[in-house]
Amino acid sequence: MSQANKPSLPRGVRDFGTQQMAQREYVLNNIKNVFKKYGFLPIETPAMEQLSVLTGKYGDEGDQLIFKVLNSGNYLENIDLNMNDYKKLTPSISEKALRYDLTVPFARYVVMNRNELTFPFKRYQIQPVWRADRPQKGRYREFYQCDADVVGTNSLICEAEIVMMIAEVFALLRIDNYSIHINHRKILAGIAECIGVPGQESALCTAIDKLDKIGEQNVSNELIERGIPQSAVQKLFTIINIQGSENQKLTTLGQHLQHSAVGNHGIHEIAEIYENVQNYGTVLPQLVLTPSLARGLSYYTGAIFEVKVHDVQIGSVSGGGRYDNLTGLFGLEGYSGVGISFGVDRLYDVMNELSLFNNIHTYNVQVMLTHFDEISKKYSLKILQALRQANIAAEIYPDADKIKKQFGYADAKNIPYVLIIGDNEIKEQKYTLKNMLNGEQKLLSLDMIIQELHAHK
Amino acid sequence: MSQANKPSLPRGVRDFGTQQMAQREYVLNNIKNVFKKYGFLPIETPAMEQLSVLTGKYGDEGDQLIFKVLNSGNYLENIDLNMNDYKKLTPSISEKALRYDLTVPFARYVVMNRNELTFPFKRYQIQPVWRADRPQKGRYREFYQCDADVVGTNSLICEAEIVMMIAEVFALLRIDNYSIHINHRKILAGIAECIGVPGQESALCTAIDKLDKIGEQNVSNELIERGIPQSAVQKLFTIINIQGSENQKLTTLGQHLQHSAVGNHGIHEIAEIYENVQNYGTVLPQLVLTPSLARGLSYYTGAIFEVKVHDVQIGSVSGGGRYDNLTGLFGLEGYSGVGISFGVDRLYDVMNELSLFNNIHTYNVQVMLTHFDEISKKYSLKILQALRQANIAAEIYPDADKIKKQFGYADAKNIPYVLIIGDNEIKEQKYTLKNMLNGEQKLLSLDMIIQELHAHK
Repeated sequence: MSQANKPSLPRGVRDFGTQQMAQREYVLNNIKNVFKKYGFLPIETPAMEQLSVLTGKYGDEGDQLIFKVLNSGNYLENIDLNMNDYKKLTPSISEKALRYDLTVPFARYVVMNRNELTFPFKRYQIQPVWRADRPQKGRYREFYQCDADVVGTNSLICEAEIVMMIAEVFALLRIDNYSIHINHRKILAGIAECIGVPGQESALCTAIDKLDKIGEQNVSNELIERGIPQSAVQKLFTIINIQGSENQKLTTLGQHLQHSAVGNHGIHEIAEIYENVQNYGTVLPQLVLTPSLARGLSYYTGAIFEVKVHDVQIGSVSGGGRYDNLTGLFGLEGYSGVGISFGVDRLYDVMNELSLFNNIHTYNVQVMLTHFDEISKKYSLKILQALRQANIAAEIYPDADKIKKQFGYADAKNIPYVLIIGDNEIKEQKYTLKNMLNGEQKLLSLDMIIQELHAHK
Repeated sequence: MSQANKPSLPRGVRDFGTQQMAQREYVLNNIKNVFKKYGFLPIETPAMEQLSVLTGKYGDEGDQLIFKVLNSGNYLENIDLNMNDYKKLTPSISEKALRYDLTVPFARYVVMNRNELTFPFKRYQIQPVWRADRPQKGRYREFYQCDADVVGTNSLICEAEIVMMIAEVFALLRIDNYSIHINHRKILAGIAECIGVPGQESALCTAIDKLDKIGEQNVSNELIERGIPQSAVQKLFTIINIQGSENQKLTTLGQHLQHSAVGNHGIHEIAEIYENVQNYGTVLPQLVLTPSLARGLSYYTGAIFEVKVHDVQIGSVSGGGRYDNLTGLFGLEGYSGVGISFGVDRLYDVMNELSLFNNIHTYNVQVMLTHFDEISKKYSLKILQALRQANIAAEIYPDADKIKKQFGYADAKNIPYVLIIGDNEIKEQKYTLKNMLNGEQKLLSLDMIIQELHAHK
């Protein structure tokens, strides 16, 4: 093969082969089934959005990571080519961009279809998103998001439903050792007030968001550099490091924030969410109040969630929260929403590391028919058709190759049965069915073959 | 709502709401199930490919329709901005592009993974593709392709399998009145030889591809303008207008092309494909030999297919063919392939025009629980959990609104059952289940409710 035209993939994107697809579908179907059981229905939005719909929603850093699509045709027409600033040039030569997440397109969808939708509107959405991030373990430039959101209600039942959905997805995937961290943006605002830097929760969030990555000392240094007084930083760590049972933490946090109205509001909402979860009648030790949980995206206004798996170093595998005014960005006020996003690619990596795919039955074709010459080809096609009419996934080896090569193909594809139709078989109208797992061969009539294959589906 | 930030969608792309999604999933699942039954397994490739992988595969016109993705970061660095030719500038500022179809990425995938794959390699792939085409009815800038291909065999069984799959998909979708047009690139080459313009089949194809759109007279004029002698054009139309049964057409065509070796080769292959189809034991009057079928894409070398639905003006809804050397474009020779692509968006439009979605049961949540105050909320959440544990898709109306509003929500969402849990119900531990279709109400225990809902799934 010449090097000249050797093809490659862009950095940070991947192909998925048949085995990966079967395993990914297993993860996706489990999530999809939970979403459906909780009353969410699917929608899809296009990969390309107007650039103006996306910019300004993810912060400056986010805006830089949006993939822009070049205008088609002569995009240089009417462009001032002396413009040397690429940031200024971009909106003139690329009016479209690839979606960065599913939440902003969802908000755009809700606003554009507000007159046709039934509110509260519950939807799920499973589609890839694109980010021009530096690729690294667990971080790709194309990855699937798997979101469920409800918009048009303030009810904290929705937050409880999210917690229940997370628990159900992880139970189905048999991932046991994980935590659902919960916090509230109003608790973060209350903390800012009570440590003496009211209104500066955004600076606090940016810094403590890195706690896991860079540790307490570095976060502390960063906060002091940003002009937060040392005494405030000390108080901050006292508050975010509170210990005890969930009830005890709620009480302690309440004491710390007793003079902050906004902080109290947040605590009351978290308490109600815990109560709602309890009302389902389930005990959920994985739910952990974590006052240091900040989450980067700026549109959250209420409860926030993040899920971490303990045995795998990969960051959060799921996250979400309440946003009071996302549709407001597009001019439609008063529609509060709350949602959760599962990171399918990371969940897939977690399942692999924990060997959780090992005992999973994934879909495959059930039987391969052999074929040696014109006569056996003619017979095999008729049998093939009968098997498919009986709803059995079947294929015929297409070439008249030696039997060894045909079996090698079935073996490599892990096809569980091979059906041999030779001269004797055609004469007797009984065909040899070989079980590829245990090597057993049986001479059976077509009816018996169908019975046998149905029994081992 | 202010006009200033009123959001919109780019031209030619669409959102799919919950009802459309249910109907689209119905179409997709039918196709997917047929692919699986025929032994095809799924793969996925990324939306973005290297621009160099895509260009030069679809002809000049196709290259213009590829959506290019702007390089991230400062794409103007080291760029000669005096370059005024956008076609020359493009590869410098955009190294990536959105896939234009699924066939070229598949060929790239096969070449990159040739050492791990089992040949003949059968895969299906269902993903969106993007084309900067002028939007019109049935033509979108983002649309799903639904492809099945087998690569690494010359066996004409594969062509027969494609015909069988098409017939099975259309039977499942209950589209009756359609034709599977079949032709062969070698027949087209033979025609060129026999009418006296050997080697010019490409010019012939480009012109006769427009026969449906512009009619015989205009095609004839175009061919004469391209330098094809009038006598040759006359002979061409005699050949492509042959009539009779499929057998008669094969014979007549054989007589016309008797002095062309390549033409004869094509006719023999078509005859073998017909014979293979017959060997499945089915009669397929929809299969029509159509010597005027050309198909635009230049990579086809053998049999070509196109499916048209008769009662709807929408162009072809499915097409495909054999390509002997697609992987050769990436330096891997000797892997012949053949495939079929279903245009899901057009099929969806056809189903709508023929009202074929009317009697289809699409997925929905089965029951909505009401909720009036703290006491009924607490009870409802417990019942909700019990229903979901019994695998019933259920949701709770999240707000403590008036009963009329709650019922209005269930009605608008077409939820078939509503469960009312008021004071009396809680006392009796029996709850009112209302059938929203016939208005019937029953007071039932939880067990009976689960039984009733399971019976009407």
